[in-house]
Amino acid sequence: MTDAPNGAQALIRTLVGAGVDVCFANPGTSEMHFVAALDDVPEMRGVLTLFEGVATGAADGYARMAGRPAATLLHLGPGLGNALANLHNARRGRAPQVVVVGDHARGHKRLDAPLESDIDALAGSVSTWVRRSLTAEDVGADAAEAVAAAARGGVATLVLPADVSWEEGASVAAPRPLRPAPQVAGAVVDEVAAVLGRGEPTVLLVGGDVVASEEGLLAAGQVAAGTGARLLAETFPARTVRGAGLPDVGRLPYPPEMAIAALAGTAHVVLVGAASPVHFFAYPGVPGTPVPDGCAVHVLAEPGEDGVAALRALADAVAPAAEPVLLEAGRPELPTGALTPRSLAAVLGALLPERAVVVDEALTSGVGLAELTSGAPRHDWLALTGGAIGDGLPMAVGAAVACPDRPVVAVQADGSAMYTPQALWTMARERLDVTVVVCDNGSYAILEHELARVGASGGGERAGRLLDLSGPGLDFVALATGMGVPATRATSAEELADQLRAALAEPGPHLVDAVLPGRH
Amino acid sequence: MTDAPNGAQALIRTLVGAGVDVCFANPGTSEMHFVAALDDVPEMRGVLTLFEGVATGAADGYARMAGRPAATLLHLGPGLGNALANLHNARRGRAPQVVVVGDHARGHKRLDAPLESDIDALAGSVSTWVRRSLTAEDVGADAAEAVAAAARGGVATLVLPADVSWEEGASVAAPRPLRPAPQVAGAVVDEVAAVLGRGEPTVLLVGGDVVASEEGLLAAGQVAAGTGARLLAETFPARTVRGAGLPDVGRLPYPPEMAIAALAGTAHVVLVGAASPVHFFAYPGVPGTPVPDGCAVHVLAEPGEDGVAALRALADAVAPAAEPVLLEAGRPELPTGALTPRSLAAVLGALLPERAVVVDEALTSGVGLAELTSGAPRHDWLALTGGAIGDGLPMAVGAAVACPDRPVVAVQADGSAMYTPQALWTMARERLDVTVVVCDNGSYAILEHELARVGASGGGERAGRLLDLSGPGLDFVALATGMGVPATRATSAEELADQLRAALAEPGPHLVDAVLPGRH
Repeated sequence: MTDAPNGAQALIRTLVGAGVDVCFANPGTSEMHFVAALDDVPEMRGVLTLFEGVATGAADGYARMAGRPAATLLHLGPGLGNALANLHNARRGRAPQVVVVGDHARGHKRLDAPLESDIDALAGSVSTWVRRSLTAEDVGADAAEAVAAAARGGVATLVLPADVSWEEGASVAAPRPLRPAPQVAGAVVDEVAAVLGRGEPTVLLVGGDVVASEEGLLAAGQVAAGTGARLLAETFPARTVRGAGLPDVGRLPYPPEMAIAALAGTAHVVLVGAASPVHFFAYPGVPGTPVPDGCAVHVLAEPGEDGVAALRALADAVAPAAEPVLLEAGRPELPTGALTPRSLAAVLGALLPERAVVVDEALTSGVGLAELTSGAPRHDWLALTGGAIGDGLPMAVGAAVACPDRPVVAVQADGSAMYTPQALWTMARERLDVTVVVCDNGSYAILEHELARVGASGGGERAGRLLDLSGPGLDFVALATGMGVPATRATSAEELADQLRAALAEPGPHLVDAVLPGRH
Repeated sequence: MTDAPNGAQALIRTLVGAGVDVCFANPGTSEMHFVAALDDVPEMRGVLTLFEGVATGAADGYARMAGRPAATLLHLGPGLGNALANLHNARRGRAPQVVVVGDHARGHKRLDAPLESDIDALAGSVSTWVRRSLTAEDVGADAAEAVAAAARGGVATLVLPADVSWEEGASVAAPRPLRPAPQVAGAVVDEVAAVLGRGEPTVLLVGGDVVASEEGLLAAGQVAAGTGARLLAETFPARTVRGAGLPDVGRLPYPPEMAIAALAGTAHVVLVGAASPVHFFAYPGVPGTPVPDGCAVHVLAEPGEDGVAALRALADAVAPAAEPVLLEAGRPELPTGALTPRSLAAVLGALLPERAVVVDEALTSGVGLAELTSGAPRHDWLALTGGAIGDGLPMAVGAAVACPDRPVVAVQADGSAMYTPQALWTMARERLDVTVVVCDNGSYAILEHELARVGASGGGERAGRLLDLSGPGLDFVALATGMGVPATRATSAEELADQLRAALAEPGPHLVDAVLPGRH
């Protein structure tokens, strides 16, 4: 590093100074100075991904586990386009991320070169903060602001013209101070305490920071124990701390009929770090939300506010002496015989290692998974926050980079795995300790359910061909080994248990293709 | 089909009536009624892709070869995000496409469900036409307009709320009349004729419709023969008709130093269906365009205008009796020994079947490819119009669907192949006659060149790791067979010839992994 770094060097040095020292990258020509600068700033770890959605999904998983942003490096508008689906998930889960999008040099913009496109329109659709660095002098300060903006729980996108990257005379900026999460006013806590005091049927719907910390979960359990309120978590929390010794927090189910049943008879829903529940999709003749008519929705803490502190204050107010009901340690017996979603879940529950990070993109194959792992040793659970499939394998990459001493288990639906299969290669390249269990039912099973649920007529052979992954079937063992990840296939519960045990025992990535009933 | 179809049925029926009878789809819940309607309208062929970029890239290749749009079916904002890179290529190549993006039901929009995002911002960045169908009554007419808008050479995006899709009372709309391309005014032809009459060094830079038709190429060759103007094609034309019996039209090279050399000494550039040339990227100290200082740029026909007719009129004016110089039939000898980009090109030149469609995403491995195939039997050539890599395999899918009686040969760089490898599965599913030749050099070789070209310092080991696809190497034979495509590996020119011959002789998809010198 010289005294007068170029823009790229100042940018990377500023990021590192602000604690952003991992960059998931898929660079192109306009990012070559950034790439070259990695040799000047060895504190920044560059992780190559072969597709941009892997980079942003990895940063999503990284942020959820590390509690701070990673950077991603993308190439122009098309690179950002490829990255958008997992930026959508990061946005929905409030996972911080600093996206650096290389752009044409300033003087090249007006020439409408073939790769010219509207980067700002794309960035604006997923970012809480967007800036274009217009001079090398500014890029350090811009980067420091980007980190600060991301730290407030969002995607911060810095557009970096190639010549700003290569110009000298840039300067490194000091990190901006981190602002703690906003506190909930005491009057709000008092109002919610009064609601709980009425003794009417109440659901405490928790999410965000509450389910991501022991303290939050214990406070929630204390309120529930002391007031009789029912405790539920949002459907797809970004990160949940789980396992024996913690309160049993069920999640609001995804299927609308089950979500409606879960909230039936409720007079009050109190939100703590969770949004007011709505169905993922609209269905003919079904209301858009499972909240019953006449049920009042109260907000103790918005997502992004300090929900844990608010809940602690609430517990002190309404249930100072209550003890939360805690889950006892307990694992299911190892099942035998046919492999089904439930026996798959039981194998996982029986074998889940201590301090595992579970990345859950199992979709329909995940039935029973939460229940059968709830008494397992303490672990973290990452769910698909925004519903954009293809975040599972990338998040596993990022979680493993963030937590190199913890085993990562990705429970991955087969159809969804095919949106970002390139993540497997990065697992191999970086020798990440990830065990992927593919829930291989040979179909978009969730769409088969949805086709019926929306009441679509037809569903004949031609429609069925669009929901069916057979003819040819996908060979996940071949796909994984083709990207350097050792893989095996399990066709019974016993085989799955044996293969999962072996995969968990050996460092580095492994894939187990769990063949479930389906359309093979 | 009932008398009162629902929105989805009316939409599909309208598309089919307007000649859009292929839909490359990656649907989700909000598109289930569209999927169900495929059973009601058997004239529409639904082709499942496992990733949205495959769908839009396939539609790009389809449109280039069929001369009319296919439809694509995408799921909400994240699905459109995944599709954007190849929509960018379609936009840059003026390839028509009707994009149908399913959205939440109208009443569900304000609930900010997890998959809610700004679809319009994304659609606007790549589309010449965007509309949201707001009632089932309108959807037929909207679809007819979408087809008409696309036919003018662009991406037309119709956002389809789920409830508009499922509501009954829709009606099928008649196709809108196709408008022929705008004609170039006679005065413009006269002006260009006067320029050519001066006898100064002139380059006729052709693209778009001119290089896609024999008539255009012959007229261009006639002008060149009669005036001494040099004939060059734009760097990445959407479709070029090539081979023995046609004029030899070299392409303006991609590398800036070569493009500058190609235009050095030119006093006039006459554009016919091509944009004024600019470098793909800016480089320190290099002007943004290869057009020399003082060289005048004249526009005979803008892209989208009838360049062929303008060129015919120009030929009649300036060279009525001239005969274009035509390429004689000729193939390179089959090479032996080491596999290099040049021997790979020679094998392709020697074996390219008649009426082949070549999809070229070979990037740095494509050196020599144009030269060594120029005397081959008549074929079509599809290039990477917008520079967004990952269009090659998908375009091959679309070209094969458009031309089921023609062999498709995809010459595909390895790094680029990994953006949309899912295309291989659709080739197998649809039993498409595609032969993929992977140019396997184990690196992002183009970026190694670019790193040097932009003058980036460094390029040390850590930078190199971001340009290098080894550790682990990608096994394309395993990847292809994992998706149902038979595959072999060639490590010498003889093996490549044998395997290519075998692949071409057998119907259905094949992949040949051509191992080139590189970083394995």
